[in-house]
Amino acid sequence: MFRYFLQLSYKGTRYFGWQIQPNAVSVQEVLEKTLSTVLRESVAVVGAGRTDTGVHALFYILHFDVLNEITESEKLVFHLNRFLPDDIAINKIWKVENEMHARFSAVSRTYKYFISTEKNPFKAETSFLYTGFLDVDKMNEAARILFYYNDFTSFSKLHTDVKTNNCKIYEAAWKQEDKQLVFSIKADRFLRNMVRAIVGTLLDVGKGKTTIEDFKKIIESKDRGAAGTSVPPQGLFLVDIEYNA
Amino acid sequence: MFRYFLQLSYKGTRYFGWQIQPNAVSVQEVLEKTLSTVLRESVAVVGAGRTDTGVHALFYILHFDVLNEITESEKLVFHLNRFLPDDIAINKIWKVENEMHARFSAVSRTYKYFISTEKNPFKAETSFLYTGFLDVDKMNEAARILFYYNDFTSFSKLHTDVKTNNCKIYEAAWKQEDKQLVFSIKADRFLRNMVRAIVGTLLDVGKGKTTIEDFKKIIESKDRGAAGTSVPPQGLFLVDIEYNA
Repeated sequence: MFRYFLQLSYKGTRYFGWQIQPNAVSVQEVLEKTLSTVLRESVAVVGAGRTDTGVHALFYILHFDVLNEITESEKLVFHLNRFLPDDIAINKIWKVENEMHARFSAVSRTYKYFISTEKNPFKAETSFLYTGFLDVDKMNEAARILFYYNDFTSFSKLHTDVKTNNCKIYEAAWKQEDKQLVFSIKADRFLRNMVRAIVGTLLDVGKGKTTIEDFKKIIESKDRGAAGTSVPPQGLFLVDIEYNA
Repeated sequence: MFRYFLQLSYKGTRYFGWQIQPNAVSVQEVLEKTLSTVLRESVAVVGAGRTDTGVHALFYILHFDVLNEITESEKLVFHLNRFLPDDIAINKIWKVENEMHARFSAVSRTYKYFISTEKNPFKAETSFLYTGFLDVDKMNEAARILFYYNDFTSFSKLHTDVKTNNCKIYEAAWKQEDKQLVFSIKADRFLRNMVRAIVGTLLDVGKGKTTIEDFKKIIESKDRGAAGTSVPPQGLFLVDIEYNA
């Protein structure tokens, strides 16, 4: 058995997220079918994590195991890209140790959330349009507070089956770029819906609806009902995943 | 009567081009309906020129006449953008002299054609994917030849009703930008299908199928059959239109 890592990117608009599910097209399903066809053996893929419906990935890692060693990986990448639809692109395939795991070996993930501050016909599917005033300094002040906490239950989808809601935040900051506002957040792990709930709550801070003190209280309450509304999925991009060498 | 210029951008993917036609949605139709609704009078719009199905505009100008003067144009822009679909955005509306005409007063137009040299899930609708080798220096050498000619019948759609096929080319150059190749062309006017036919023929030069000498002969033949295949519409953007002050 040989294990491979595969690095890809996808536009999530047409998919019901990463994970295979009945009666809906997922990125995972399309990849398993294409890999199985091209490699002529049944291939199951294990992804670095879930992404929700409409969420995109500029950088995504999956692993798969095959019986026959892959000799020409560049050629394989080329063939797979021709078979795959326009909105999924493979960048690289390489052999790894059998102990490496796309999900469990990952030590950090980075997401970006894009807000268009002016209507842009070319970004309707890849950003969230918000043209009102936002106090970006206040939003950054609140974002820095995230570093002092570990338990993010307040920003987690209810009734998930994870054992702990603890995450270590490495990076959390807003940047104004021309006609968009970009939030970057890096952590060892993320709870379901966590980034979109954090962004939604930080927008409430930017609008003046929620004070910095309120923001702290929301985190400390460990109550999802206390946080702001999640922002829509089309602005969210998974942009990096790190592994221990 | 008051005449206004309106500057907008649109993603052409969903539209059968700029111009109104039966049984197909055009950008012009959507704009006329929205302007008429918001301004509460029947508004006809005159565009700077046609764009074909699937072609985009980063910068487009139209004019329209109204009986009632527009007093708050920024507010109007805001309202129109809320009414319009995601893939059309208005940037500005301003009053002009009644003699100004979106099409006849234009003194130049600039188009860009985008080629992705690597598969990109986010550019399937806004670029043409070509991963083979292209000799960009040769393509630029051929592009410079365009300056020495006026009659571009060879790159025009057959049976159009224009009186002359003469155009003055001001700019024609390829630029390599990261993972894309961009062709910019500026002229006083363009014939139907001209940019896509020129790009297709220049690609043949880049692939080594057509020599520089052949390229000259193609122009001189004034025969559309001699030129290369037109490239697909999704890579084409109208990016600028100039008017005499």
